[in-house]
Amino acid sequence: MAVYTEVADEELAAFVARFGIGELRAAKGIAEGVENSNYLIHTSLGFFILTLYEKRVLEADLPFFLGLMEHLSGKGLACPRPVKDARGLSLGRLAGRPAAIVTFLDGMSIRRPTTAHCRALGEALARLHQGGADFAATRKNALSVAGWRPLFEAAAPAADGVSPGLARQIEASLATLERDWPEDLPVGNIHADLFPDNVFFIGKEVSGIIDFYFACTDALAYDLAVCLNAWCFEPDYSFNLTKGRAFLSGYRGLRPLTEAEVLALPLLARGAALRFLLTRLVDWLNVPPGALVKPKDPIEYLRKLRFHGHVASAAEYGLQP
Amino acid sequence: MAVYTEVADEELAAFVARFGIGELRAAKGIAEGVENSNYLIHTSLGFFILTLYEKRVLEADLPFFLGLMEHLSGKGLACPRPVKDARGLSLGRLAGRPAAIVTFLDGMSIRRPTTAHCRALGEALARLHQGGADFAATRKNALSVAGWRPLFEAAAPAADGVSPGLARQIEASLATLERDWPEDLPVGNIHADLFPDNVFFIGKEVSGIIDFYFACTDALAYDLAVCLNAWCFEPDYSFNLTKGRAFLSGYRGLRPLTEAEVLALPLLARGAALRFLLTRLVDWLNVPPGALVKPKDPIEYLRKLRFHGHVASAAEYGLQP
Repeated sequence: MAVYTEVADEELAAFVARFGIGELRAAKGIAEGVENSNYLIHTSLGFFILTLYEKRVLEADLPFFLGLMEHLSGKGLACPRPVKDARGLSLGRLAGRPAAIVTFLDGMSIRRPTTAHCRALGEALARLHQGGADFAATRKNALSVAGWRPLFEAAAPAADGVSPGLARQIEASLATLERDWPEDLPVGNIHADLFPDNVFFIGKEVSGIIDFYFACTDALAYDLAVCLNAWCFEPDYSFNLTKGRAFLSGYRGLRPLTEAEVLALPLLARGAALRFLLTRLVDWLNVPPGALVKPKDPIEYLRKLRFHGHVASAAEYGLQP
Repeated sequence: MAVYTEVADEELAAFVARFGIGELRAAKGIAEGVENSNYLIHTSLGFFILTLYEKRVLEADLPFFLGLMEHLSGKGLACPRPVKDARGLSLGRLAGRPAAIVTFLDGMSIRRPTTAHCRALGEALARLHQGGADFAATRKNALSVAGWRPLFEAAAPAADGVSPGLARQIEASLATLERDWPEDLPVGNIHADLFPDNVFFIGKEVSGIIDFYFACTDALAYDLAVCLNAWCFEPDYSFNLTKGRAFLSGYRGLRPLTEAEVLALPLLARGAALRFLLTRLVDWLNVPPGALVKPKDPIEYLRKLRFHGHVASAAEYGLQP
């Protein structure tokens, strides 16, 4: 949750006026997203979300993110649709930052997903993968295996201060993952950060998927691995197989997994756990003085990484033959 | 701006369901108000604001605040209207806190008010005073002259660390104000915190007055004194007489001032400046570790207090005969 950038009202009204979405009536800074500043705006034509991209999002990547959202929403997926100005541009500048306006989506993110939520998530993720298949642009996953060692090196000297033996444990996992990481899995445009924060539900139905700012072109099954980590563990770090089964079966009902994907799932799950362990660790060690956002605890992902280290096959995630 | 309390989604949906405002569709923590937690909620019947009252608001005062809002909105004033449950109650409990839902108001608060905004503010304030005249309940102003010395005593030992000589300057003003504070001015229900943050405009028209959580029964002219301080100074602490004139003439066009009110205005303006100087100073000296909200600079109000010390008559605020 964060509003990093305050925008002067006249500047905001002028920005909104460009997009043909009616006259600005209200704007509220909202506590959503940890990377960017978000405003819920009301115009004479409805409600929208205005995002100002803060420095962690590379401006050069924005056309990919916004283009993918537009493409997916055109396919009927419940994701924000960027609005365009008269010249067909959705990306502008406001208060010195890149900025865009997207449609408002109803729904609530769920702090404690149930099995039914996990099944609906699996279905929605399959639709996202199918819908993104013919999106022409691509973006390399900067936070896949090749990106992990630089993060580790940045965090290694202080890692053991966070948890004794942490550096050694990361080093061991990283070496295996670098050696064994699969390069031949089915690839497509993936969300890559599909945490419960980023999925809205109305009742048990997915009503919105948001925050495409880590989306990239990578193994489809990696998105499954991220979701197993983010949705199917209980608060005590135990893995809920019933939720895993519901999620995977929801997904496979729409998009069957290849044999290679099934075989790779435990390794991908370890990779996804390591990716979030590393980024959280770096954030944990680099909290700026006066920061408004408390970093997330990296140890949660160390615990998950350890769990995956003892998984022998995808059956242990609930994948049924 | 703050969201202090996170509410579980099921609890939130159950709370909203009580009020007959349709089914909950979305809720966003919003960056509005510094004392309470606010959520913008969307239901099948529209948009509303949910407020959770944090510890600085006394629960015993909430019926007064909510009752006044209801009374004023019933008179056609653009202020939030509390929604009621089947038993006619607007105040409930959510996440262990008192909580209420009010109607959503369009409009934007203006960071740099123009003369036209100041005139519209004056008119809106007069309507607020007229509308509140027959509201039966009363609430003592806990932050009027009798409340200042305790604040001063709490801050005095550290005051000179904020600005050399501050304690002595406050003591001198306080002694005069305690001696001369007028007790015979027309009294009514006042807002008492009508800063630009708390007034929404659409164009040059006032579309909403919010945040009644300092409202009380006190001299009507004291509200004018608060507004002269909060709206008519420039960022360099110079007083803009044109804005003062517009504000006062907007007000007097609807509610004439008595001779006693005109005579008292410079003293009331000093009192209002001292009130905000003292509360800001106490907040400044008591920032809790890890606070999300940066306190406001008290020195702004020391500068304003000094200005008022050289004002001989209300004419210097732009009041015309």
